[in-house]
Amino acid sequence: MGDRLLHVTESQQFSREILYDLFERADKMRDYSGDKFKGRIMASLFYEPSTRTRLSFESAMKRLGGEVIGTENAGEFSSAKKGESLEDSIRVIGSYCDLIVLRHNVEGSAKKASQVSKVPVISAGDGKGQHPTQALLDVYTLYREFDRLDNLKIAMVGDLASGRTARSLCYLCSKFDDIELTFVSPDNLKMGGDIKGHLSENNVCYSEHDDLNNVLPRVDVVYMTRIQKERIEIEDYENARGKFVINRENLGLVREKSRIMHPLPHVEEIDLSIEIEGADERVAYFRQAENGLYARMALMDMILNGS
Amino acid sequence: MGDRLLHVTESQQFSREILYDLFERADKMRDYSGDKFKGRIMASLFYEPSTRTRLSFESAMKRLGGEVIGTENAGEFSSAKKGESLEDSIRVIGSYCDLIVLRHNVEGSAKKASQVSKVPVISAGDGKGQHPTQALLDVYTLYREFDRLDNLKIAMVGDLASGRTARSLCYLCSKFDDIELTFVSPDNLKMGGDIKGHLSENNVCYSEHDDLNNVLPRVDVVYMTRIQKERIEIEDYENARGKFVINRENLGLVREKSRIMHPLPHVEEIDLSIEIEGADERVAYFRQAENGLYARMALMDMILNGS
Amino acid sequence: MGDRLLHVTESQQFSREILYDLFERADKMRDYSGDKFKGRIMASLFYEPSTRTRLSFESAMKRLGGEVIGTENAGEFSSAKKGESLEDSIRVIGSYCDLIVLRHNVEGSAKKASQVSKVPVISAGDGKGQHPTQALLDVYTLYREFDRLDNLKIAMVGDLASGRTARSLCYLCSKFDDIELTFVSPDNLKMGGDIKGHLSENNVCYSEHDDLNNVLPRVDVVYMTRIQKERIEIEDYENARGKFVINRENLGLVREKSRIMHPLPHVEEIDLSIEIEGADERVAYFRQAENGLYARMALMDMILNGS
Repeated sequence: MGDRLLHVTESQQFSREILYDLFERADKMRDYSGDKFKGRIMASLFYEPSTRTRLSFESAMKRLGGEVIGTENAGEFSSAKKGESLEDSIRVIGSYCDLIVLRHNVEGSAKKASQVSKVPVISAGDGKGQHPTQALLDVYTLYREFDRLDNLKIAMVGDLASGRTARSLCYLCSKFDDIELTFVSPDNLKMGGDIKGHLSENNVCYSEHDDLNNVLPRVDVVYMTRIQKERIEIEDYENARGKFVINRENLGLVREKSRIMHPLPHVEEIDLSIEIEGADERVAYFRQAENGLYARMALMDMILNGS
Repeated sequence: MGDRLLHVTESQQFSREILYDLFERADKMRDYSGDKFKGRIMASLFYEPSTRTRLSFESAMKRLGGEVIGTENAGEFSSAKKGESLEDSIRVIGSYCDLIVLRHNVEGSAKKASQVSKVPVISAGDGKGQHPTQALLDVYTLYREFDRLDNLKIAMVGDLASGRTARSLCYLCSKFDDIELTFVSPDNLKMGGDIKGHLSENNVCYSEHDDLNNVLPRVDVVYMTRIQKERIEIEDYENARGKFVINRENLGLVREKSRIMHPLPHVEEIDLSIEIEGADERVAYFRQAENGLYARMALMDMILNGS
Repeated sequence: MGDRLLHVTESQQFSREILYDLFERADKMRDYSGDKFKGRIMASLFYEPSTRTRLSFESAMKRLGGEVIGTENAGEFSSAKKGESLEDSIRVIGSYCDLIVLRHNVEGSAKKASQVSKVPVISAGDGKGQHPTQALLDVYTLYREFDRLDNLKIAMVGDLASGRTARSLCYLCSKFDDIELTFVSPDNLKMGGDIKGHLSENNVCYSEHDDLNNVLPRVDVVYMTRIQKERIEIEDYENARGKFVINRENLGLVREKSRIMHPLPHVEEIDLSIEIEGADERVAYFRQAENGLYARMALMDMILNGS
């Protein structure tokens, strides 16, 4: 069928239909216990470290009864260091496994790998490119928290210039109806023109603001991202800091039915003290991280077991 | 029940009753073959490397039929580097697994982790703090070698100031009757006052000596530890060296029924040549290391399958 | 029986009979699906990184239904750093597993380990010494591609002085009949006298050439190896470069039924463009790498399940 996924390299690949199919599968995975992947081997090739993402993929494979081989530091250890091409590495590793999960520091690597691989390749992020399974778990979280994907007001906050998760999420937002996006970021870390162009072409409404507290009461979702201190001037940073943070003071501005999401890890953009009880329903990012496990199980299931 | 273990963060948690329960389970694990942990996943989070301890835990989990995800270098690779709190890492990783084994370089980390984790946390050592499963395998070894835990004369030798294994073992010794401890160490690496206080309060007899050869003929157990050359003056070290070593010369002073133990790795404090045949019953530390596997299987069994 | 393999430390151990037994087993492993190694644990101890070899061994173990514990950086992380002897590490790790796969940077380490290990040790390469399973997969590839091991003309090309794969393969070649070897290498990277002596004693015909294009049309196998730029003078390298490369120009000189092999990774000694279609039957090195998986499965099967 047209929708059949083989390789997963960018979030645009997920059609509305595939997404709903994945969400239903993911819901079933929440209490899956069995070994439908018995005898299947996933190779986990991380050319740059990302422990959280790697463990999520590896746990997903093992919860399905499959096995994992891999390296948490392919760049340092593998034949890459001896100058081997990524394509050759993929050709060889592909003969040892049934599925490759690839994290790479160079944009476009996932696509390059998928072109020569004889087994499916799933991107776990490539450089400044995309991180399609993060986008997948983000929309799965919207689906879980709101029971709908249409008609949502979403604020994206922080470093929107280089944060690939916000960018990938925008691509998916364009597949749904009545999404309103609000970008809240320091002047020098604004959402890129390519994404804005994509949204306009797809009739997604977006606006830009620089006062988070004004935006908080008006949105369903506050999608926080980490402001990378090292990327901006100290002065700008100190200035931006108070504006782009969720803490005990402005938490009250977030509506009761709204949700705070974050791709994690978070640092000071969210005050740790709001997590302490773990009982505030609005703090959704730990559920979001857990959703990653089920979304990845569903994705691997769709790829290896067909649709 | 009161004795039920959930998290394991310090050796004091093990009551006499729990210990005997664990030893019986461990004995059964010696030829266990099955998969009672099928579908269970252990996350092995090592913020500082400790290959031996990690492999022992991972082998234990796999011998029980379970699975492992993990990292051998969490400090370097994980989101810790991006500034994430340990608590947040534990919250997220806890949603990928059924059990966390945590090795950390900062004292108190295991306790901190256990306070927010939704799955059991077992400490695999935290900084200068404790290493409770090492203490567990040490007493299990006493139990195996002597068929009793009471009425033992134990010499602890080497760096007693910073060696956490000797310290943890002292805590457990206070739970048994008629234990006599002899501390043999360089002047500047003596056992700490906190431990001595604990022993006094619990009526455990201890004394200090600096001539190993005088002590050897009088004890049931010689518990050797590594003297960390880098921690003392060269001159002191050179002086201390000959005194705190087991070699072909003084091995004869160790009684036939006595045992030489060591948490390993050992360096020059034990002369390699006494191991060559592997037939000297008094050299107990390889059996001790192997006991770690069964003790950890028993511990995980108690935690995950209840008592 | 005399031929029974326990430890595998050098390619000379493989007799002609063992090799044929292994090849038959390997052929069966190509579509093996089952778990005859259920409950068995392999420890994968890599004191120097070799991702490809490690993943091949680990995949082999898992395809047989077994489990793996291990470290991809034993030198950096393990107790080796604290000064522990390899023998002690092996004694301890051997009590956690059923099989040790050892890669070490020091020649002779595999043999040393095998002398104290209570479980089988398979060398995955030791320093400038041997890499016996690479030699095994090389001859298995000859067997698959030519359906014979006798009466073959083999050119070995590149750095023959330090390349341990070519050396190990020579040892195996001496077990078959009517093998003709041609060594093609820069003057300062010629095959060592020890190997030449071994070949002469065993009546294996060999000669040396320095013009690859002259040799290509006359051999069944072109066994390429990487010229290590860093080992020779720039001038010599630049001069040697064009002569010891397979590219679109001289590929035509390779006969239709001949095969190009390479232990991989390859860099510029083979022009990437000849791989693009993946359809040239003469390019055998990806099949060769895949054969490594089956050869290692067969080897572990022979060692753990007997002959």
